[in-house]
Amino acid sequence: MIVVLKDNPNQKKLDNLIQWLKSLNIDIHVSEGRNTTILGLIGDTSVVDIDLISALDIVESVKRITEPYKNANRKFHPDDTVLDISGVKIGGGSFHFIAGPCSVESMKQVCSIAESVKSAGAHMLRGGAFKPRTSPYAFQGMREKGIEILLEAKKLTGLPIVSEIMDFSQISLFEEVDMIQVGARNMQNFELLKELGKINKPILLKRGLSSTLQELLMSAEYIMAGGNEQVVLCERGIRTFETITRNTLDLSAVPLLKSMTHLPVIVDPSHATGLSHLVKPMAMAAAAAGADGLMIEVHNDPANALCDGQQSLTPEAFADLVNSVNHILPHAYRSNR
Amino acid sequence: MIVVLKDNPNQKKLDNLIQWLKSLNIDIHVSEGRNTTILGLIGDTSVVDIDLISALDIVESVKRITEPYKNANRKFHPDDTVLDISGVKIGGGSFHFIAGPCSVESMKQVCSIAESVKSAGAHMLRGGAFKPRTSPYAFQGMREKGIEILLEAKKLTGLPIVSEIMDFSQISLFEEVDMIQVGARNMQNFELLKELGKINKPILLKRGLSSTLQELLMSAEYIMAGGNEQVVLCERGIRTFETITRNTLDLSAVPLLKSMTHLPVIVDPSHATGLSHLVKPMAMAAAAAGADGLMIEVHNDPANALCDGQQSLTPEAFADLVNSVNHILPHAYRSNR
Amino acid sequence: MIVVLKDNPNQKKLDNLIQWLKSLNIDIHVSEGRNTTILGLIGDTSVVDIDLISALDIVESVKRITEPYKNANRKFHPDDTVLDISGVKIGGGSFHFIAGPCSVESMKQVCSIAESVKSAGAHMLRGGAFKPRTSPYAFQGMREKGIEILLEAKKLTGLPIVSEIMDFSQISLFEEVDMIQVGARNMQNFELLKELGKINKPILLKRGLSSTLQELLMSAEYIMAGGNEQVVLCERGIRTFETITRNTLDLSAVPLLKSMTHLPVIVDPSHATGLSHLVKPMAMAAAAAGADGLMIEVHNDPANALCDGQQSLTPEAFADLVNSVNHILPHAYRSNR
Amino acid sequence: MIVVLKDNPNQKKLDNLIQWLKSLNIDIHVSEGRNTTILGLIGDTSVVDIDLISALDIVESVKRITEPYKNANRKFHPDDTVLDISGVKIGGGSFHFIAGPCSVESMKQVCSIAESVKSAGAHMLRGGAFKPRTSPYAFQGMREKGIEILLEAKKLTGLPIVSEIMDFSQISLFEEVDMIQVGARNMQNFELLKELGKINKPILLKRGLSSTLQELLMSAEYIMAGGNEQVVLCERGIRTFETITRNTLDLSAVPLLKSMTHLPVIVDPSHATGLSHLVKPMAMAAAAAGADGLMIEVHNDPANALCDGQQSLTPEAFADLVNSVNHILPHAYRSNR
Repeated sequence: MIVVLKDNPNQKKLDNLIQWLKSLNIDIHVSEGRNTTILGLIGDTSVVDIDLISALDIVESVKRITEPYKNANRKFHPDDTVLDISGVKIGGGSFHFIAGPCSVESMKQVCSIAESVKSAGAHMLRGGAFKPRTSPYAFQGMREKGIEILLEAKKLTGLPIVSEIMDFSQISLFEEVDMIQVGARNMQNFELLKELGKINKPILLKRGLSSTLQELLMSAEYIMAGGNEQVVLCERGIRTFETITRNTLDLSAVPLLKSMTHLPVIVDPSHATGLSHLVKPMAMAAAAAGADGLMIEVHNDPANALCDGQQSLTPEAFADLVNSVNHILPHAYRSNR
Repeated sequence: MIVVLKDNPNQKKLDNLIQWLKSLNIDIHVSEGRNTTILGLIGDTSVVDIDLISALDIVESVKRITEPYKNANRKFHPDDTVLDISGVKIGGGSFHFIAGPCSVESMKQVCSIAESVKSAGAHMLRGGAFKPRTSPYAFQGMREKGIEILLEAKKLTGLPIVSEIMDFSQISLFEEVDMIQVGARNMQNFELLKELGKINKPILLKRGLSSTLQELLMSAEYIMAGGNEQVVLCERGIRTFETITRNTLDLSAVPLLKSMTHLPVIVDPSHATGLSHLVKPMAMAAAAAGADGLMIEVHNDPANALCDGQQSLTPEAFADLVNSVNHILPHAYRSNR
Repeated sequence: MIVVLKDNPNQKKLDNLIQWLKSLNIDIHVSEGRNTTILGLIGDTSVVDIDLISALDIVESVKRITEPYKNANRKFHPDDTVLDISGVKIGGGSFHFIAGPCSVESMKQVCSIAESVKSAGAHMLRGGAFKPRTSPYAFQGMREKGIEILLEAKKLTGLPIVSEIMDFSQISLFEEVDMIQVGARNMQNFELLKELGKINKPILLKRGLSSTLQELLMSAEYIMAGGNEQVVLCERGIRTFETITRNTLDLSAVPLLKSMTHLPVIVDPSHATGLSHLVKPMAMAAAAAGADGLMIEVHNDPANALCDGQQSLTPEAFADLVNSVNHILPHAYRSNR
Repeated sequence: MIVVLKDNPNQKKLDNLIQWLKSLNIDIHVSEGRNTTILGLIGDTSVVDIDLISALDIVESVKRITEPYKNANRKFHPDDTVLDISGVKIGGGSFHFIAGPCSVESMKQVCSIAESVKSAGAHMLRGGAFKPRTSPYAFQGMREKGIEILLEAKKLTGLPIVSEIMDFSQISLFEEVDMIQVGARNMQNFELLKELGKINKPILLKRGLSSTLQELLMSAEYIMAGGNEQVVLCERGIRTFETITRNTLDLSAVPLLKSMTHLPVIVDPSHATGLSHLVKPMAMAAAAAGADGLMIEVHNDPANALCDGQQSLTPEAFADLVNSVNHILPHAYRSNR
């Protein structure tokens, strides 16, 4: 961390600052220029509050030169993390498809889709039991009943399941869920992240709608700092000025995250684009860019899905997507460090 | 709601759509043009899922012509809502100052600031006990102890207090807190909003960092739909490409929200700008634009605040701000409908 | 176009509106609901100014249901446009590499790079003679001399060249340039677009930093409306909140533009990311998503490039990129309509 | 400027870098930490290309600690610039109203509006002769004839006029125009800015739709570096995710720009909001925040304006706005440094 001081800083305040930094086990190198004095802070500066230092009236500006995330940082864990999600090993060069309906609607629907996507090549089943909807008047999900249905489909097909938690008070329902999803709108629900850091279960952490990649990694760090290092990151589109697509899929996030962190990175082109005809090309592009997997919405009857039907594929279209992606994979970008 | 159909829609699918809409008590007017058929949906369309209709393959596009929020809508409640927050009546033409430290740090700090801001003209005391911080390694607030300190300061000064809740499991601690704040990062924490809709206490709802005004009102609607109509809206800056300020204060939100809703609208220029020298001019501008109040960070020793020191004012600077705003108020924009 | 009227519109104003629309050869279907009257406008509504109608006090809102672009619209030109750029045929299922330095710096530099990229598989040479730089104190390009150098490199290698024009007063220098580039900052320099619409030369139109795809197509429409239908569109990254990359490459723009327009669509991952280690994975992803070509910055000595060195590849890295992209191409998304 | 080197930098490359910087008259202070070496660059670093240094493979990161703009920088010109625009003295504590139609439509229209706004208190007349429109099929302005009409209105009323130039080839038409406007879409049309830097006439420079304030000042710097120091800055709204307003007025830009630069800063609430009912409150807020003036669209018949009618005020509404702003002015934020 580098602290640039204002011209002619008050010597007593400067001494106080240096004293305080030393008390945090930080070494300080002072470099005095003609007009500007620069402090180089050396040591574990992740404990130093950059805002606090910025606020001092002798300080002109502060700049971090090391990343504020540690557990998630590839620098300290050069090898890819491989997570074992009930037998599905995500990360480390493999590639997986997670597929299923946006919302759980009925036993028949979920079981039918689960069997279809399994035979098309999916490795995990997704389905929303708790649904974050902008309107209180929109369908909010089948909740407890929805989780039960997913567990039945798991029993039927053997596919591990992933489903979204919206509040930690729901945790007891997720005991047999194989991976817990944190949605984009909860990426900075820090109390939830902290609680999920205390459990022993893989977490699928989706990027917030207007979050930077460092913010995403800081949210992963919240979970990991609590002891749970099983985090899968998911790029699912960010908000931009484009109005035709629901969000804008940021595929440069894939190779960039892979260089910043050792955690697996998957891509959700369904939510990102919101348009079914864009899901396949974006899935192929995500694979080419080096993603570790895909999360795809599949519905047996897209036009009647209770939510997000516009972005769902039929099982046939999903099978076609798997096929196309599998042709890309042998040629995908993998030398990602 | 207007539904534009694709050319030559399948008649059976069209009949199904019309049937289903009628089952929701929606009247339909069909207008057939040379190439385009348009359905006009009349009735309470807030129950109609716009995404669902968009997904139908006979549909080209859908457009709402009435707002999806009802309880918060000024059309149905033309008069300003006036909330009584332990005697402080917000809304309806009055103007209030809420002031206090970003974070509660000690009894001495809070009580000293509380007395200062009261004598400078503040009507309520703010203070963070639970702090949403991007980094798990940053100061997370004094939590329970912080709430206790605020309650002491309330006892001392008589100022009602407002503090942020981060998870509904904390609710029992907020029994004597006069207004509960929902932070920007929780604006779409729908489970929290639903729970807050069931209690009988004023809620201060902050706009999300990249939320539209309609999304803010839909989040207010979540609370109000549960029965709790005591919501104060707070504009606190949105994320833009500008990097000098922390966020960009959107003051056009003030007159616009006042025209859309009957709820009180206050402005937080401290968090919005992140720079103490911009707080006063933005406070004055907010008053001129017709806001119902201001939320201002005040610290007895800004340079040593544990967080957000850069944006805090000294008690003296706050007193000066109150004075300047009070000169603006008699000339402010108030004919806001 | 659909016009939703306010409740109880003034009959005389409504008659005037209908009269005026009829004078533009627009047919009108009136649909009267209980509260709402809707006008359906049928005919060539691209001549109707949506802002003008929105401004009428009897109008609640207006919605286009046909696109405001005609010449660029795939609906009216279902087949891919194939442009012949001095023998290089872009569009229609082929794939091309355009490569070269960001800035022209010297004869030796450009000729050396031109020969390298040609042998690596490039089909065209790019190079900036006029450079749009944020600072007036930064290197502004070699200008006239730069164009001369490019023409020498063309003579040497036979590669057609593309270079950026910054003002139409420079047009005489571009006589032998094979394709003229309009940079992102000039995408809405409408006077320049109009002039380029009058010449007979391919135009490479880059998307603006915060432009929507419809705005990009409207800018293409400016050129095409003047008679010059030779336009290649280029996605080069949009401004988002991410700070690690210079911009955010929007690859969903590729299949989306291909569905909206018949014009060729290429991708510039060098400017979009600003980081050389992201260029290859994003180039591969762009190919997978169905792009018609790539524009890549190559420098013989990236670390000494006078500008944008961070995003340039060495000739060796470019050859490796071409090789990797060529492996993707047979499996790329091509059924793009 | 601070350059942070990577661990164990190649000594020869480091020597080359230092040599080169010294050749630019930059002094260098080297500070060696345990792992990190930092170079402090002292001198006129505005000539140093930050991208060039970032690209060197021995460099970790670079940070400017002085602003890259000089002529526009308040640090070097502490006093407010006061521009004399044909007798109207903008800047330095005064306040001015510039008003008129979006587009010049006819002699009668402009003269009528000019007389109305003059009697309501306007100091200058605005009117668009050349109109930047997204669609080539929309009204493009009366062009030459429009300038003639404005000059007639100037003769009639004595009001100095401001009008937008879209290309430098139009400059001869602007000889008697008192201030030349550069529109938001041309803020980074660097060739135009350079040419305007060579003339002796005030320039009204509007902020680009997604530009930062530093970018705005760098564009002002382009004009000033050429010798023309008569620049007025105009905040006119930035693009955000809000869809109700056309753009989002960034009023914090007012006090922030006033602290960064000595140039006058005015605000255009008409274009920023796009909604006539928001113009007055935003005008009042701009005045409260310390703006040097306002630019307001006024039309004798807003509903029939050929463009942008939604955002225009009637002459009566403008007179009311002037009155309301004048009540704010004595209490506005003026201690702005």
